Amino acid sequence: MSFNSFGHLFRFTSWGESHGPGIGVVVDGCPPGLAISSEIIQRDLDRRKPGQSRYTTQRREDDLVHILSGVFEDERTNGLRTTGTPISMLIENTDQRSKDYSEIRDKYRPGHADYTYDQKYGIRDYRGGGRSSARETAARVAAGAVARLVIPGVTIRASLVQMGPHKIDYANFDWAEVDNNPFFCADPKAAALWADYLDEIRKSGNSVGAIVEVVAEGVPPGWGAPIYGKLSSDLASAMMSINAVKAVEIGAGLDAASLTGIENADEMRAGNSGPYFTSNKAGGILGGISNGDPVVVRFAVKPTSSILTPRNTVTRDNHDTEIVTKGRHDPCVGIRAVPIGEAMMAVVLADHFLRHRGQTGRDAGIGFPPASEHL
Amino acid sequence: MSFNSFGHLFRFTSWGESHGPGIGVVVDGCPPGLAISSEIIQRDLDRRKPGQSRYTTQRREDDLVHILSGVFEDERTNGLRTTGTPISMLIENTDQRSKDYSEIRDKYRPGHADYTYDQKYGIRDYRGGGRSSARETAARVAAGAVARLVIPGVTIRASLVQMGPHKIDYANFDWAEVDNNPFFCADPKAAALWADYLDEIRKSGNSVGAIVEVVAEGVPPGWGAPIYGKLSSDLASAMMSINAVKAVEIGAGLDAASLTGIENADEMRAGNSGPYFTSNKAGGILGGISNGDPVVVRFAVKPTSSILTPRNTVTRDNHDTEIVTKGRHDPCVGIRAVPIGEAMMAVVLADHFLRHRGQTGRDAGIGFPPASEHL
Amino acid sequence: MSFNSFGHLFRFTSWGESHGPGIGVVVDGCPPGLAISSEIIQRDLDRRKPGQSRYTTQRREDDLVHILSGVFEDERTNGLRTTGTPISMLIENTDQRSKDYSEIRDKYRPGHADYTYDQKYGIRDYRGGGRSSARETAARVAAGAVARLVIPGVTIRASLVQMGPHKIDYANFDWAEVDNNPFFCADPKAAALWADYLDEIRKSGNSVGAIVEVVAEGVPPGWGAPIYGKLSSDLASAMMSINAVKAVEIGAGLDAASLTGIENADEMRAGNSGPYFTSNKAGGILGGISNGDPVVVRFAVKPTSSILTPRNTVTRDNHDTEIVTKGRHDPCVGIRAVPIGEAMMAVVLADHFLRHRGQTGRDAGIGFPPASEHL
Amino acid sequence: MSFNSFGHLFRFTSWGESHGPGIGVVVDGCPPGLAISSEIIQRDLDRRKPGQSRYTTQRREDDLVHILSGVFEDERTNGLRTTGTPISMLIENTDQRSKDYSEIRDKYRPGHADYTYDQKYGIRDYRGGGRSSARETAARVAAGAVARLVIPGVTIRASLVQMGPHKIDYANFDWAEVDNNPFFCADPKAAALWADYLDEIRKSGNSVGAIVEVVAEGVPPGWGAPIYGKLSSDLASAMMSINAVKAVEIGAGLDAASLTGIENADEMRAGNSGPYFTSNKAGGILGGISNGDPVVVRFAVKPTSSILTPRNTVTRDNHDTEIVTKGRHDPCVGIRAVPIGEAMMAVVLADHFLRHRGQTGRDAGIGFPPASEHL
Repeated sequence: MSFNSFGHLFRFTSWGESHGPGIGVVVDGCPPGLAISSEIIQRDLDRRKPGQSRYTTQRREDDLVHILSGVFEDERTNGLRTTGTPISMLIENTDQRSKDYSEIRDKYRPGHADYTYDQKYGIRDYRGGGRSSARETAARVAAGAVARLVIPGVTIRASLVQMGPHKIDYANFDWAEVDNNPFFCADPKAAALWADYLDEIRKSGNSVGAIVEVVAEGVPPGWGAPIYGKLSSDLASAMMSINAVKAVEIGAGLDAASLTGIENADEMRAGNSGPYFTSNKAGGILGGISNGDPVVVRFAVKPTSSILTPRNTVTRDNHDTEIVTKGRHDPCVGIRAVPIGEAMMAVVLADHFLRHRGQTGRDAGIGFPPASEHL
Repeated sequence: MSFNSFGHLFRFTSWGESHGPGIGVVVDGCPPGLAISSEIIQRDLDRRKPGQSRYTTQRREDDLVHILSGVFEDERTNGLRTTGTPISMLIENTDQRSKDYSEIRDKYRPGHADYTYDQKYGIRDYRGGGRSSARETAARVAAGAVARLVIPGVTIRASLVQMGPHKIDYANFDWAEVDNNPFFCADPKAAALWADYLDEIRKSGNSVGAIVEVVAEGVPPGWGAPIYGKLSSDLASAMMSINAVKAVEIGAGLDAASLTGIENADEMRAGNSGPYFTSNKAGGILGGISNGDPVVVRFAVKPTSSILTPRNTVTRDNHDTEIVTKGRHDPCVGIRAVPIGEAMMAVVLADHFLRHRGQTGRDAGIGFPPASEHL
Repeated sequence: MSFNSFGHLFRFTSWGESHGPGIGVVVDGCPPGLAISSEIIQRDLDRRKPGQSRYTTQRREDDLVHILSGVFEDERTNGLRTTGTPISMLIENTDQRSKDYSEIRDKYRPGHADYTYDQKYGIRDYRGGGRSSARETAARVAAGAVARLVIPGVTIRASLVQMGPHKIDYANFDWAEVDNNPFFCADPKAAALWADYLDEIRKSGNSVGAIVEVVAEGVPPGWGAPIYGKLSSDLASAMMSINAVKAVEIGAGLDAASLTGIENADEMRAGNSGPYFTSNKAGGILGGISNGDPVVVRFAVKPTSSILTPRNTVTRDNHDTEIVTKGRHDPCVGIRAVPIGEAMMAVVLADHFLRHRGQTGRDAGIGFPPASEHL
Repeated sequence: MSFNSFGHLFRFTSWGESHGPGIGVVVDGCPPGLAISSEIIQRDLDRRKPGQSRYTTQRREDDLVHILSGVFEDERTNGLRTTGTPISMLIENTDQRSKDYSEIRDKYRPGHADYTYDQKYGIRDYRGGGRSSARETAARVAAGAVARLVIPGVTIRASLVQMGPHKIDYANFDWAEVDNNPFFCADPKAAALWADYLDEIRKSGNSVGAIVEVVAEGVPPGWGAPIYGKLSSDLASAMMSINAVKAVEIGAGLDAASLTGIENADEMRAGNSGPYFTSNKAGGILGGISNGDPVVVRFAVKPTSSILTPRNTVTRDNHDTEIVTKGRHDPCVGIRAVPIGEAMMAVVLADHFLRHRGQTGRDAGIGFPPASEHL
């Protein structure tokens, strides 16, 4: 029922507005004894933070994370360990520039949550979207960084695979390329083309949508829980909760609608270490439970709603007007959604690992440190 | 944490296997005083039940629902009223034919949950999929029928909009046509073409995927709750939890990725009764909260995994083999997913209505009977 | 948020009214592979069922349990095993005698939930209390019988330790005596005295309260979770949810208020297999977490509200009247609360065991069958 | 499942350790539009804070609260209003004195959670109890202060009614006296006697238990939800989650066990504005639902475990030793539990009000501002 929390055994609660003193997250249910540090969290936050290229908002936020609770010194290593109690993390807002937003306080920005928050709550924090700002996603990334510690045997990576109408060529796909371009794109040729395309979009005061693909490798068979705790169902919820996301696909996704049963069947063969699948149309999930193949999720991000081109809108007291959103905005918010998608994948998997271990007692195969190795 | 429950204030728990004595559902949190009857529930169940045309499984189940609790006689009307306590509904299994499944007890059916349940639980109910059978969806439809009573001002309808590669033409779209063809298709011309296409698929021992579109009209602005209780997020979870679903879209969905911000903006104008949107790319949801426009969700259903064409697979003890699934199966499970999609939409909306009313005290605009009119 | 569910990883949902077709419970989250049978469940139900002596209600219910889902045949043993899916259990109502209650339909019985249900829901099932009837507790006992299977190394027993003003003498305490008298009393001398006392109470058309003590032995240190998932907090919630319970104590309980810190300290000593406590004022719980000592909970049950002595009350339309409740009632409902207290203890512990195992990976010390021994 | 959260529609999550940088709480689900300020929160915190008399710990903490999110300026009043989004509050730790605790790092303090946290987590924050410190209760008080805003028509007060063996005389009971003595005691004569008694206890290096009574007036009939969401059940869970609490009573509580049905019956009479009860043995709750009478809860707090008298204990590596806990401790922690009990009552009632309003649409009678009066 808590609207600002996600997860069950591994659960986080985020808080904060775009232009308040800061934002934060409380991670509850993290197992004890895991080595942790601000640096580990910061590394993921730095990938999401704004102002890193001309393709993302020029708002300058250091997004420095402070760990306020849930950790203790491990005297053997002089590092920090999780204690099993809530990990509270705080990120201060340092570059709010509230005045940028004062002129829109009485207008609803099309495509934003301005109108719906006002209708729901009867009160509206107009400073940069308030709670509905994408700034909230920094909290997710911090939670995701903790989640990764829970499932060290699982590798989670993501890539932008489509920008506007331009898709990558999977023949060029190379995870090593993701950090070599400002788009988190695994296809370097596509990234080169996108650079020109996005410059043009940006200069014309427009914006564009994108598709992110998130892949988790190393997930053993058995995670996920029928019927309403399916891994796929939780992933859909997780990704759809990200700002501006309008579609979520697992494996073949929407294309599965066009296929026949013969085409869509992931056939099985006997392997040395057990059965394996000869294809992965399923995206690693059957009946809501992981099958040992990579878990593959894609999600579509709509174009940034804040654009420099005038749009029709209304005032708060219902008069026609126009709006141009002059703030510092990303021409393609899909780019910064890449580390956010990774974070949500990590949270869902960490939660399902703990739930699976709780219900079945099984935890082999992911490199999780046994209790005996804990402090 | 309860894996077989869905919802929060309005919440249901389903139970039962394909080939046990029956399946059922317990609906908790339904408001008191609502007129209810077995007939109301049965009407929705009848739309989902198998054996109604040559395009759905020939398994014959009457799917008769028994209401076991949560209702009481209203002496003024001689009808039943909900009492506010759990509504337990039971549907007996009457046509199990367990022997159909005995030959597959030691083989994993590709595309099914056989392998993953076995990996997770170390035990497998091989009779028709056990818990993972689509038979569970009858429970959802019963719960959805109750949910509709909670939000009488909201109209929820669904249509098959794509079968295999064949899409409908929205120019022909007419809700009145949905019950005039065996596909729940709002485009009668498409339905006519699909009949031939699906006959061919079926005769060739194959199957095909589909896309379902669910639309809720009459949802007032303000339902849904940021950040992890977004209406969109809960709808994604709801639809992705349906058997064989691999993708969920809201509004423009995946297409939003290809659009620019100028194209995607739903502009606003001042109307007599408040602001309105001149388009609905958003699918009725902004920032996770309803905006007063129709809520539009589409989901993709993969082709039936059980087909009469041999597929490679392995035995439970990891030897290569082949399998032909001879049971009585739907050549396009997407068809029967139409009333299921409606049911899940109803449950999500009923739940959000109650949560919204709880948090904000607002319940105007949906025709919900005020407490004073209750018994 | 589900008002008729209890627990988290191990969770049950109960439904049903006193005078409907039956009552039932759905147990969700039970681990797979556990040997189960109707007989195991029935054994616990038989201890709670009415009509077993002149000291409990003469309503005759066989309380036969039907397991409708969640189990499958283990071919090696020809017995049933849990499958990890929801276990639905049904108990039919066979001796409703609705007419007994028709005369009270327009009066509120003092001490009952008649008035409050009517105020809350605006509708009232007056047949034997409807949902508020103690009949619901059969569902708890069935769920508790399943919970015991999850924690086979834990022994859970209970005794009536006070009836009206008459306490047992702990010097006589012998668990073996509990089933030798109609009061589930571990002190045979007290039981003998209570027989006469309760006869007198019963014959005078009166009733009396009682205290039940529940003890769980074999709980290893470490179960329970700070801060709002404390073992003590969940036990308090569990016991207070039982009909007619007005107080819950852990360990020294209310007496702890009168003690000094010197008196109340459970001191520790080094033992061969680790530290131990030289006393158990804590009732086996420190900081909400089990300490390895027996977990000791007591709860007070108020006297049966339905008595044969006239009491002042009002009609539904607010006129003064009197009432005599003529139904078949227990003169001391505390007696039948004994197996119910055991059941709730079992559910809380099973839930905490799974949560603990999920969060920490530790499951040693309770004899839980390792996954490798599952089917 | 979140172990550090409490509540459902109104829900808070606390975090922080005794000797970390601070503690805090995130309140989720608070309705929008309520007037709020730091001062309102601080007023309640000041009642709980240490160092206010010689009877509470001499640790000096200002306990200044910072509201970090969830509020916005109301231009009409120049004050703050809740926005419906999470209210994050931070209280810095300013007087940690970590060295006080260094000598106990390898010993378990009897009666504390040292041993159980170590057994559960394999890691122990020995600084002042870490997460298990009563310092966490400041977070509850802050959440409770917000909860009070949600139910302005309800008056919640508490009094210490027993210290060690010394009970108050209810004939002297006067709420106005509660803030006139350092014990929050409504009986001024008892308070005078306790002063001497507690001085003696304190000087002898000992401590003592206490009983707190919390009363909520103005709760309309109908709040609470059967069966596992009973108002009584949630109150039991809430109070038992407070540090050092070992028993919880509703209404007649433990005494109900000694009463007969005739004695315990709260009879009803017809009043001008509806039925009323002629006594309140029920403590305002019947069948888990409020009946309109004051809700009365008592809880027993054990004596402070940290005492200046040596106690037997063991070292972390299982050797016999002794311990004297020299920190700055309360001789009777029950005193400071008074505002904490009020806070937990407020949270439970606010949550149930929202749940009740959600499920039934009824919110009359508590003076809650209608949505139309919100900003």
